[in-house]
Amino acid sequence: MEALVGKPVTRVDALEKVSGAAVFGPDVKLVGMLYGKALRSPHAHARIVSINLDAVRKLPGVRAVVTGADMPGVLGGEAVKDMPFLAQGKVRYMGEPVAAVAAEDEATALKAIELIEVVYDELPVVVDALAALEQGAPLIHEGLENYARISVIKPVPKSNVITVNEYTKGDVEHGFHESDEVFEDEFRSQTVHHAPLEPHSAVAQVDVSGRIVVWGPNDSPHRLRKDLADALHLRLDRVRVISTYVGGGFGGKGGLKAEPIAVALAMKANHRPVKVVFTREEVFQATLVRHAAVVRIKTGVKRDGMLMAREVKIVWDTGAYAEKGPTVCSQATAAAAGPYRVPHIHLIGQCVYTNKAIAGAYRGYGTPQLAWAYESQMDIIAKKLGIDPLELRLRNILREGDVNPVGHPIHSVGVEDCLKQVAQAIGWQERQHHPRVTEKGRHVGFGIACGTKNTKTPSGSEAALYLCQDGSLTIVTASVEVGQGVRTILAQIACGVLGLPMENVSFSPPDTDSTPFDASTTSSRTTFHMGNAVKFAAEDLKKQLAQLAASLFGCDANQVVVDGGKAWLSEQPERCLPYPELLQKQYGAGASMMGRGFYYPKSEQGRAFHESPSLFWMYAAHAVQVEVDPKTGRVEVTRLAAAADTGRPINPVNCLQQIEGGAVHAIGTTLMEELIVDDQGRMVNPNFHDYRIPTAMDAPEILASLVEAPHREGPFGAKGMAEIVTTSVFPAIGSAIEDAVGVRIRDLPITSDKVWRALRESTEK
Amino acid sequence: MEALVGKPVTRVDALEKVSGAAVFGPDVKLVGMLYGKALRSPHAHARIVSINLDAVRKLPGVRAVVTGADMPGVLGGEAVKDMPFLAQGKVRYMGEPVAAVAAEDEATALKAIELIEVVYDELPVVVDALAALEQGAPLIHEGLENYARISVIKPVPKSNVITVNEYTKGDVEHGFHESDEVFEDEFRSQTVHHAPLEPHSAVAQVDVSGRIVVWGPNDSPHRLRKDLADALHLRLDRVRVISTYVGGGFGGKGGLKAEPIAVALAMKANHRPVKVVFTREEVFQATLVRHAAVVRIKTGVKRDGMLMAREVKIVWDTGAYAEKGPTVCSQATAAAAGPYRVPHIHLIGQCVYTNKAIAGAYRGYGTPQLAWAYESQMDIIAKKLGIDPLELRLRNILREGDVNPVGHPIHSVGVEDCLKQVAQAIGWQERQHHPRVTEKGRHVGFGIACGTKNTKTPSGSEAALYLCQDGSLTIVTASVEVGQGVRTILAQIACGVLGLPMENVSFSPPDTDSTPFDASTTSSRTTFHMGNAVKFAAEDLKKQLAQLAASLFGCDANQVVVDGGKAWLSEQPERCLPYPELLQKQYGAGASMMGRGFYYPKSEQGRAFHESPSLFWMYAAHAVQVEVDPKTGRVEVTRLAAAADTGRPINPVNCLQQIEGGAVHAIGTTLMEELIVDDQGRMVNPNFHDYRIPTAMDAPEILASLVEAPHREGPFGAKGMAEIVTTSVFPAIGSAIEDAVGVRIRDLPITSDKVWRALRESTEK
Repeated sequence: MEALVGKPVTRVDALEKVSGAAVFGPDVKLVGMLYGKALRSPHAHARIVSINLDAVRKLPGVRAVVTGADMPGVLGGEAVKDMPFLAQGKVRYMGEPVAAVAAEDEATALKAIELIEVVYDELPVVVDALAALEQGAPLIHEGLENYARISVIKPVPKSNVITVNEYTKGDVEHGFHESDEVFEDEFRSQTVHHAPLEPHSAVAQVDVSGRIVVWGPNDSPHRLRKDLADALHLRLDRVRVISTYVGGGFGGKGGLKAEPIAVALAMKANHRPVKVVFTREEVFQATLVRHAAVVRIKTGVKRDGMLMAREVKIVWDTGAYAEKGPTVCSQATAAAAGPYRVPHIHLIGQCVYTNKAIAGAYRGYGTPQLAWAYESQMDIIAKKLGIDPLELRLRNILREGDVNPVGHPIHSVGVEDCLKQVAQAIGWQERQHHPRVTEKGRHVGFGIACGTKNTKTPSGSEAALYLCQDGSLTIVTASVEVGQGVRTILAQIACGVLGLPMENVSFSPPDTDSTPFDASTTSSRTTFHMGNAVKFAAEDLKKQLAQLAASLFGCDANQVVVDGGKAWLSEQPERCLPYPELLQKQYGAGASMMGRGFYYPKSEQGRAFHESPSLFWMYAAHAVQVEVDPKTGRVEVTRLAAAADTGRPINPVNCLQQIEGGAVHAIGTTLMEELIVDDQGRMVNPNFHDYRIPTAMDAPEILASLVEAPHREGPFGAKGMAEIVTTSVFPAIGSAIEDAVGVRIRDLPITSDKVWRALRESTEK
Repeated sequence: MEALVGKPVTRVDALEKVSGAAVFGPDVKLVGMLYGKALRSPHAHARIVSINLDAVRKLPGVRAVVTGADMPGVLGGEAVKDMPFLAQGKVRYMGEPVAAVAAEDEATALKAIELIEVVYDELPVVVDALAALEQGAPLIHEGLENYARISVIKPVPKSNVITVNEYTKGDVEHGFHESDEVFEDEFRSQTVHHAPLEPHSAVAQVDVSGRIVVWGPNDSPHRLRKDLADALHLRLDRVRVISTYVGGGFGGKGGLKAEPIAVALAMKANHRPVKVVFTREEVFQATLVRHAAVVRIKTGVKRDGMLMAREVKIVWDTGAYAEKGPTVCSQATAAAAGPYRVPHIHLIGQCVYTNKAIAGAYRGYGTPQLAWAYESQMDIIAKKLGIDPLELRLRNILREGDVNPVGHPIHSVGVEDCLKQVAQAIGWQERQHHPRVTEKGRHVGFGIACGTKNTKTPSGSEAALYLCQDGSLTIVTASVEVGQGVRTILAQIACGVLGLPMENVSFSPPDTDSTPFDASTTSSRTTFHMGNAVKFAAEDLKKQLAQLAASLFGCDANQVVVDGGKAWLSEQPERCLPYPELLQKQYGAGASMMGRGFYYPKSEQGRAFHESPSLFWMYAAHAVQVEVDPKTGRVEVTRLAAAADTGRPINPVNCLQQIEGGAVHAIGTTLMEELIVDDQGRMVNPNFHDYRIPTAMDAPEILASLVEAPHREGPFGAKGMAEIVTTSVFPAIGSAIEDAVGVRIRDLPITSDKVWRALRESTEK
């Protein structure tokens, strides 16, 4: 029955993608479509004194002009409703949309926004999260405690703190007291961008009844429907969202990005569709970034390396609006102590507004910033105690049935094997025999690290399957193909259960009008949640097929075996009918059979959003070999071993590709990428010339492997893994650099000049 | 729970329709769309000697050229696969598509088809069905017995007879022998056209994988998917059909019309969409018409008027291709004896190819042609026996539990009440006191008639409902709004069951990729079949809501009442939660609830298509008052009483509007409409100048009423009625004319000149 599960089948979207036929966001073209452009704030914090639209309204070809004044009371945001579609009264980051224009063509729209005159009254700017916490810091959102919000969010009135989340276990002070050594360190990580190759876009149209339709590369159509409906005070069904293929998401293609501007314009465009495609500069400035974070970590250990107590204080720089920042804070903070047994825990996250680009979901949802801290510190501890870094980790690592740092017994824990596999692959035990300096004078070092991530809990997914009379099968879900291979995975699960060939499958496009509810294509949840929903739907079909066969055979359904595309009498296997014949015999006039599968973990029903422990935890480990040129500080990762606990892989090749992609992604974050703002909140490098992302030339030899720690509730034991595959790359590289040249960099990215300066400083000492 | 059922709520599509926003077939516009035109045969029967495409291929702007030679082995047809998408080897009717061109614009496409040179070798033409039956008649389809076909079709080799269907009960010869009087009459009906205001159209596109998508005003997307997939030898899911609103269907907007031409072109158009919109001439010549029929009816009666035996022989002129002709023949022939108790029956229908436009489904599916015969003859019998026409009918009429002429016990039989209601409304009993000549010298007459129609059996429908967390409800079905009000009816049923307001409803557009299977929006089956499916889906939701409430209340589901948008504890009504709260409490992170409903009558499962007795029968009666001007023969229907048995009306206003529309429709057929061909098969009046349809000016005062004979299997007792409302208009008018001026016309339409000639002949005698 599971013939296809665990097999490296070819991706079902391969032909469409390689032929260029796949429709991504910017490919959407509708007849009569207008082109929209936003006028954006040049200031990071300012009051809007006046907006003069006289000139723009006179420009031929302009069809709609809109400002925040047209949308009173419209505030969007999944966790906290704080963000106007277009600035209302003030702007809070450079690039915030202030007005927008829709015109007959893009050139006219571009010309038009230059005709809008906005008078600003500049306000003091806060671009540092720690500064934003200080008494007397300029308030970015006055009255933030009045925003509508989900229950888990705890804003601090008259401050810039939109939420504080705290987790305790045991007595951390007692734990420190009992420790032989206590380590206190601070690690910082920078603002980075998802940098998808496909820019953000949306096409919106409002019909005669006021119903809104949005097309675009949004990773979560049902979430976007709710975000738009809630913000605009509409019933859910008054909004329809149709998701295209997504050309790179990594967390940045959900929620309200290009969509609010397209919708605001569409509402004034006399029922014509309006298309908004962001420039690369807009993508960098005005979509979403990953939180810069300041992590202060204090750990008490026994002399033998056993962790006793850990306190982690995180300040999350969430930028100008909440977006998913508060849930990143609440969810990631719970993972801040790492995949270790620690009896005494205190974790505290503060999510802080600044006058910068909005931060939110980014592959790992805050956990990579934490692994950067706790794993770097593990190596500091190992060095101080004279214990091998791998050995220190293995002494403390979480294993099946342990209670995790936030007090929950855990299941499906493959992290020990991940560590062992990467150690084996990189040659950890033999590394001391490796030449430490290359012929070119570059110093060689090794590093190892591991990490963990939780998933959004609770959440729900529903799937429908239509089995047609010729055995073709349509998978009807709102899961979005963001490049992660979801269509292939769901097809393998459905066909695996039903015993049908992969080529029989087609897909209904994600559309809130017709595909059943799905929470989101985020949080590495789709294989687990939608995988379960599709599996249940396929099992529902099998049950119906058994009943149908039983009625044709004249027996009980439990005497029928359904598998491999056929149903037969268990005691007379020669009495056997393929699915098409079954359906044709029973429904001679034509009918498909619908299978339904709903997955919303039973244990989570009745609980509020984000108030439960994670349904599953992901684990991975990385070991790297680096070469550092002491003359320039340049770091090259030459070999990288990576292992991820996939529960059970539905498609091993897909999982290995995720591991490879994640490794290169994380090398970019570790060594190259940083969005830089000046002290006035102006982003200085919002383009691919100045913001470098890794290319194939930056990719090391990657030794990827899988660990199987099947999850009892995952489909065939599978669980998510798309995010965890970046998490422990940063600290592994950081420690390998120290291993190579003796300097430890504590703030990402580890650029050549930082290494070079640190080397110079260490020489000068 | 049924608060909305039976209420005359406003149509849910009213705003879209009156504002002009509704998208009909010709409104579909896609970016990059080409425009397709077909070159059509000027001959009704000819061999294609050669097609020269050299000139057309050189015309700038031409992007695709296709002929039948490009599509070997492609034959379409629901019941009989006999129709090429483009003529192969020979043409069989004037207007048959021979080649097609897609170009950048419509003007180029029109110019292009004129550059195609076709050499024909003309063949003898048969335009009369009786002549086509004769020995030695030219064969229109050589080897017709080799066509793939459904089991009910019985072709006669080496003839033009594509099927013969026969029904017998008792011993008809014995019945005639026992009769006091035997009547033998022949009645003919003409070829008429559905004449929808919206012309036929289709847009087709073929993706990089060869998958075909078709948009258009097709009444049965799943049927079209199957028709196309079967013809092109594709798996069902390799075709996707999305139906728009239909601007008038009446049976003529199903199956393969503009679609094969659009698809044939799209397959050569390098993945660009191709739009084909028929001209009015093409609509008349090359879509579908209603069968002309020759009905020979022989009836034996006792002196008291009791029907003893009836033999009906029908020759159906099905035109050049089978389309739905053979199933019209099989289904309608079963209804040929009328809604009467007749012990001895012999019914025989022959479906005959001719070199004329293709005949098939048309509101009533053959039964109006039959009612024209059996009801006209009832009045001949009444006159001869000296029995009042109403009285004669009431003596013989079918009542609940009777066995119908084809031997099946029947249920839900409102025809007696229909007759009584129309008699009452028109003043039947008092008609003799009515002045027989008006002041203008016009002669007044009265007629009464009734009729019956069966429905396609078996057939299946499936529906899904999504109940969202704010109480909005999406109805997901493939039922097509052809103007009949299906969206309103389904919304009333869903909201009626769930106790939700109508404004909470939205609709998923009919789309074979996402809306569950539905056999067709034909045969007056949608209220019954899809109505049941939607009702079951709503009940499924209520069951789930009860379980959900029970888990929240901590009780058993059977202690919970779900109604009016709320669930409460039956013994503590104050413990009550509206649906949104229920869903929000249980699924705090968001989820909709899916309800599913599948209806395929249990008794029909395991049976072949069209081989079962009708699941339900429809009944109606009409009484008319006419004025005939003896100087000109001109007939005016001045008053018309109509009653239809609706089972139970879901929306009485909608039903009354159907009755009114049907009456005017049928007046057109009775008095005005006829598609005329010359002896070479050339249609002489394919336009609205020469083919007159009734306008509001031709509408009489209509006295419409409903009869409720609830059907035990219909949703809330409802059954279909859209087709039956034309059936008995023709004979009622025919008999009223005889009542007025003493002449009986036996061939439709009853034009002024026919009446004038008949009057002159009767005077000359």
